[in-house]
Amino acid sequence: MTKITINEVGLRDGLQSLQRTMPTADKCKWIDAAYAAGVRHMEVASFVPAKLLPQMADASEVVAHALTYTDLNVTVLAPNLRGVENALTSGAHRIVAPISVSAAHSLANVRRSPQEMVEEFGRMCDLRGSSGRNGVVMVAGMSTAFGCTRQGEVPLADLCELVRLVLETGCDQVSLGDTTGYATPGQVGETIDAVRAIAGDKLQAAHFHDTRGLALANSLVAVQHGIRELDASLAGLGGCPFAPGASGNTVTEDMVFMLQSMGYETGIDLQRLIESRAVLEAALPGETLYGYIARAGLPKNFVAPPAA
Amino acid sequence: MTKITINEVGLRDGLQSLQRTMPTADKCKWIDAAYAAGVRHMEVASFVPAKLLPQMADASEVVAHALTYTDLNVTVLAPNLRGVENALTSGAHRIVAPISVSAAHSLANVRRSPQEMVEEFGRMCDLRGSSGRNGVVMVAGMSTAFGCTRQGEVPLADLCELVRLVLETGCDQVSLGDTTGYATPGQVGETIDAVRAIAGDKLQAAHFHDTRGLALANSLVAVQHGIRELDASLAGLGGCPFAPGASGNTVTEDMVFMLQSMGYETGIDLQRLIESRAVLEAALPGETLYGYIARAGLPKNFVAPPAA
Repeated sequence: MTKITINEVGLRDGLQSLQRTMPTADKCKWIDAAYAAGVRHMEVASFVPAKLLPQMADASEVVAHALTYTDLNVTVLAPNLRGVENALTSGAHRIVAPISVSAAHSLANVRRSPQEMVEEFGRMCDLRGSSGRNGVVMVAGMSTAFGCTRQGEVPLADLCELVRLVLETGCDQVSLGDTTGYATPGQVGETIDAVRAIAGDKLQAAHFHDTRGLALANSLVAVQHGIRELDASLAGLGGCPFAPGASGNTVTEDMVFMLQSMGYETGIDLQRLIESRAVLEAALPGETLYGYIARAGLPKNFVAPPAA
Repeated sequence: MTKITINEVGLRDGLQSLQRTMPTADKCKWIDAAYAAGVRHMEVASFVPAKLLPQMADASEVVAHALTYTDLNVTVLAPNLRGVENALTSGAHRIVAPISVSAAHSLANVRRSPQEMVEEFGRMCDLRGSSGRNGVVMVAGMSTAFGCTRQGEVPLADLCELVRLVLETGCDQVSLGDTTGYATPGQVGETIDAVRAIAGDKLQAAHFHDTRGLALANSLVAVQHGIRELDASLAGLGGCPFAPGASGNTVTEDMVFMLQSMGYETGIDLQRLIESRAVLEAALPGETLYGYIARAGLPKNFVAPPAA
């Protein structure tokens, strides 16, 4: 059986999109429930100034809780050197730095051009080295890789050029992010093939949003083109700032259903994963929880594969 | 450019699932709007007793209106000889007879076993011949082809055996229907390949429901496996009797967006198709209209291909 790694990003990408802040204790409950369902990769926090993202002010505490599970791979996001410093101190295993391919998005998001952000990423990798924590994996999270709400098209050539620059730093992994929900299936396959030709095995993961209903189709194509790690968010948490009513991240439980139905090994107990939505229902009353399989239920003939 | 035929089935599969009945004038407006958006294939009615499905009591009138468009391909559904007789009289170009692969579903739906239904289909084809309307295309709509809410798994061998029997009648085309929303991407590819090995070019269309969020992924795989006609319903109309809140048929406008983004020719003006939802909003106040692209809007960089 081919194994696909599901990286639960709801605690980071999901929660940072909400107006309210989930209490630390509830975040820990979510981690507990996801772990119990077999999830072994989670992006649990973002190391950003609390005044910018109060939802992430407890990043160190959340990482500390996640690290109590010795076989849980803990990823965090950090957009700058200060964030990486804190992330390294926290003990997280993997740090994603967002590098927007769209210049317009990059300037708005981190006030740097894409090229400046690559230079910053190089300094982040240096800091990782000088911190003595060489085991920490540095991921270049290529944001707006498939299009941008500000500038529209993001040429594949721009992405490829930026990936080439990123690979000259201490980058361990490259992730392709459809930050804006623009990706379409044909484009996903073409993009992965082009980036793999440059990055080889360092092309690790893909991250889709369901803004236009294509998160599962895009994930499917990513897998067809050799991607073995996919980001997703329980109940699709994350919303979509520019499209009220449209769901946010790929729904973890729907993606697990699709992958398991195709014979891929995820290590996840789907029924327990579906039940873990109760943590969100309790902690985020009134919040829209997305997802099809949780509403429709598993098909009668569904055979659950072995969990982790 | 490879052409994909989109068969709008909302007027049949969508409307027959609703509690209320759409007035004939509104059905005609829907046909007008779909035609104006470039839709050239529609399944507009079901010839069944009005006391069983009052939503379809005006089938002949609706067909008559559709036929005023001389280049519109008009399909209807008919579950028995009487229905086919009326369908032939109506002037429809194509008749789909539902043949459930699941014995449990077949008995519940048409009170015949799958084999008895194939025999009935043979008589339907004979009636077509004796009516002198040999140009009418007879489609075996293989229902529950991917699984059944009653019996669970529907073995692929059962489907293949039934398709073999169907091909011994006057069958012109075979359509694979995921009546229950059970289909998953790997299964779709495997099933299409197996049925094509038996039916060759007579394997024409696929019909998916979005019950478990996989309608687009399944449609994508169907296209990857050579299917060139797909059923869909504007705004996903159709609901899902056993999963409240889960959407029904594949959403036409989302499917058109996906296919056009991949360079397939549908002949449809997507913006006009999205605008045609206004007909449903006016005629079915309060009804849930599904679909992502209508809410999120087209991406900034979307280039509309030429319409019909």
